[in-house]
Amino acid sequence: MARANEHGVTPQSEDFSAWYNELVVKAELADRGPVRGTMVIRPYGYRIWELLQAELDERIKATGHENAYFPLFIPESHLAREADHVEGFAPELAVVTQAGGHELEERLVVRPTSETVIGEMFSRWITSYRDLPLRINQWANVVRWELRPRLFLRTTEFLWQEGHTAHATEAEAVAEAMTALRLYEEVARDVAAMPVVAGDKTPSERFAGALRTLTLETLVRDGRALQAATSHFFGTNFSRAFDITFATADGTLEWCQTTSWGMSTRMVGGVIMTHGDDKGLILPPRLAPYQVVVVPIGRGPELGRSIDAARSLAAELEPAGVRVRVDERDHLSPGFKFNEWELRGVPLRLELGPRDLAAGTVTVAERLGGEKQAVRREEAVAAVLARLDAIQAALLERATRFRDERTRVVDTFDELVDAVAAGFALAPHCGDASCEAKIQEVTSATPRCVPLDAPAEEGHCVACGKPAAYGRRVYFARAY
Amino acid sequence: MARANEHGVTPQSEDFSAWYNELVVKAELADRGPVRGTMVIRPYGYRIWELLQAELDERIKATGHENAYFPLFIPESHLAREADHVEGFAPELAVVTQAGGHELEERLVVRPTSETVIGEMFSRWITSYRDLPLRINQWANVVRWELRPRLFLRTTEFLWQEGHTAHATEAEAVAEAMTALRLYEEVARDVAAMPVVAGDKTPSERFAGALRTLTLETLVRDGRALQAATSHFFGTNFSRAFDITFATADGTLEWCQTTSWGMSTRMVGGVIMTHGDDKGLILPPRLAPYQVVVVPIGRGPELGRSIDAARSLAAELEPAGVRVRVDERDHLSPGFKFNEWELRGVPLRLELGPRDLAAGTVTVAERLGGEKQAVRREEAVAAVLARLDAIQAALLERATRFRDERTRVVDTFDELVDAVAAGFALAPHCGDASCEAKIQEVTSATPRCVPLDAPAEEGHCVACGKPAAYGRRVYFARAY
Repeated sequence: MARANEHGVTPQSEDFSAWYNELVVKAELADRGPVRGTMVIRPYGYRIWELLQAELDERIKATGHENAYFPLFIPESHLAREADHVEGFAPELAVVTQAGGHELEERLVVRPTSETVIGEMFSRWITSYRDLPLRINQWANVVRWELRPRLFLRTTEFLWQEGHTAHATEAEAVAEAMTALRLYEEVARDVAAMPVVAGDKTPSERFAGALRTLTLETLVRDGRALQAATSHFFGTNFSRAFDITFATADGTLEWCQTTSWGMSTRMVGGVIMTHGDDKGLILPPRLAPYQVVVVPIGRGPELGRSIDAARSLAAELEPAGVRVRVDERDHLSPGFKFNEWELRGVPLRLELGPRDLAAGTVTVAERLGGEKQAVRREEAVAAVLARLDAIQAALLERATRFRDERTRVVDTFDELVDAVAAGFALAPHCGDASCEAKIQEVTSATPRCVPLDAPAEEGHCVACGKPAAYGRRVYFARAY
Repeated sequence: MARANEHGVTPQSEDFSAWYNELVVKAELADRGPVRGTMVIRPYGYRIWELLQAELDERIKATGHENAYFPLFIPESHLAREADHVEGFAPELAVVTQAGGHELEERLVVRPTSETVIGEMFSRWITSYRDLPLRINQWANVVRWELRPRLFLRTTEFLWQEGHTAHATEAEAVAEAMTALRLYEEVARDVAAMPVVAGDKTPSERFAGALRTLTLETLVRDGRALQAATSHFFGTNFSRAFDITFATADGTLEWCQTTSWGMSTRMVGGVIMTHGDDKGLILPPRLAPYQVVVVPIGRGPELGRSIDAARSLAAELEPAGVRVRVDERDHLSPGFKFNEWELRGVPLRLELGPRDLAAGTVTVAERLGGEKQAVRREEAVAAVLARLDAIQAALLERATRFRDERTRVVDTFDELVDAVAAGFALAPHCGDASCEAKIQEVTSATPRCVPLDAPAEEGHCVACGKPAAYGRRVYFARAY
């Protein structure tokens, strides 16, 4: 067993998995619920989700989607209408068999995703080309029974948004799926400071029922990939199963082309794993519940003056849009507080003590490290704003550098084995499921995606030597 | 059967119930889901909920509460720990008995409310007086199996927020329950334009497990009462059941005092029933998805100029904070559009046609009625802002007048029978459940609340003649 350091968690460098599990609980992000696999998202963790939600919701609305809400319960027979879909989700379903004191005539599935119930409603709402495109988003909880649950990453119940759209043409539906992916990419990069690779899933990794699954893949600090969001093009698979048709301008009846796309509370796990270090969390300023913590220092009447000064500084930071907390707890030492806020990932700490007050300064410490610095009090607000921007940029740069250092272009099976032990392998791949199975058996790695933004390149499959498919290299990695 | 009028719904004055049921669907607020009793909230209805949510969430946070999220599934044995609570909810539970392809060892209840799962977590999180007060809020879906479902008012699944708090003293917990009630009262009055009576439930009407249930009661246009929100003081009932204790400053162990309080999507039904008329919905501006609809008028090139003018007007209204929609649909007549937006309750309609353009004016029509008026184009934005404020105030005034006209002070049983046929009766009541049962049997009316803000008054029970309890008159009404 690795030993917890002074911050109270096993160092990341010693045991990544123990570090993550302990940190999520110690930092008060989440707790295990009473039912196995369920999660309680505590206020500190939920605030991160709320900040992410707000950024995402704004962009979803700005691109012409409207929010709605669909029922939690789906008749079991509905789910069965799309054959691939039910096959994919059947092992993960929770089923209500009793309600209102009686055995139900038809069993109800707790939604694992909402294509089927939304498909049913789309078929009622859409009659003519004038009703298209129909672009709906839902914020909701979904349930997928997990055998190996892990807080945020894989929980029996999780929170997400799921966009569902219907279109008159295939081209428009594919463009919609791409719009959603690019919107997620922007949020991952600009808000979560998470560099992602955008690409297509190979057939074996597609969503149940999809013709095309687009994905964002990121690399976390133990060298594994994490899927940050997905976007699916269904063609007419669901519209045929749920009878979603429209009359064209000249009166003929056609099937709609549909899509769906989602991002979930899993992203919070991704943020933890992308930025954290041995001391604990490091939160990107744009997702930090507190961007700044102010710790007043001193004893007796000196402490009183420090607290007054801290409050007055906070009162200037708040109207400037800074999320700030003054830590006035009187039973804890400054050192204890420093450790605690480092563990909890607050990007910037301000210290205010008698020496600062005498000198007219504020002491600034960055969570990312470096020497503490004294900043003139009258320049404190401007300095905080500038540093928060700089930290946001530095985190993205640091994560991008890490990802790039751990991405290797490989041409042989042995090179691939080495590469996926540390991160991404970019390899030529023939596209056969049997080669994917062979790679997974030897390395645990799977194809993460066929990148959208990559140069065209021919080659020979790293596993079988046959000509490569897709016209470009494929990302492989061990994945969460 | 009443006949639908030119707006497409049965007039409210002919059949209130048919009016409501038709209107909810016709105005595209909600639809029935595939499972009996479930509801699909369509974008227009969901936007009303989002606007209400934002107002409520802001006030919940401003009063020191933090959002969190707790699991949907509760072990059946947990729910049973508080005897009154399980007895109250048992008939309404939906139960998951299978998951992940297997029969579950312990059955899981889909939360009907979250006191039990939150109580379990509070007992883990609270150890000392320093952890108090703990003030948490959750936005979530809950499930209560309904035998007579009705969209928004009573659905098998609904959306709500539930606040849950723990305190060191009874006085503080009671004050918290009161804070929540006053916050709801403010939202009902200032946002939903809904006049409410704040009061205590009599023992027979309390929440299962509560020592005190505070409620907001409003009167809708068919003379029935509607409960808009409730707030509960539990004393130590839940902390004893879930072992929620804290060490005081001097080290003794005590039970926490807890509260919970909730407002739900039922409020959307309340808004419809409070303000609507024969023509359809009337939405208070602060909850209207579109506060203003602009209808361009004309044919051929004239129509093109009207559309340009409408867009440019909308482009001025939006930055002023007005939610505006330009109705550019080219296959519908202006008259059809007028009717549709009246049905859907948009507070203000602007018409822009060739005559308006020539005269430099905009034609303004209010949903509440009155003559159309021409407003100078350069004054249009200011006029819209002023009118929206005036409409918001007028709706509250209109609803208050309606409520007051339908509230009668009564001293005899016969007077009570008459009064509750039309609205509220304010009657002396001895407090006995047997008198409440007698009143309900004869009139269907139940005690709605003992008002908080009412003069002290003695008297004799309207049902049995014994001295009245509570020191003030009690509100009775038939209720939803």
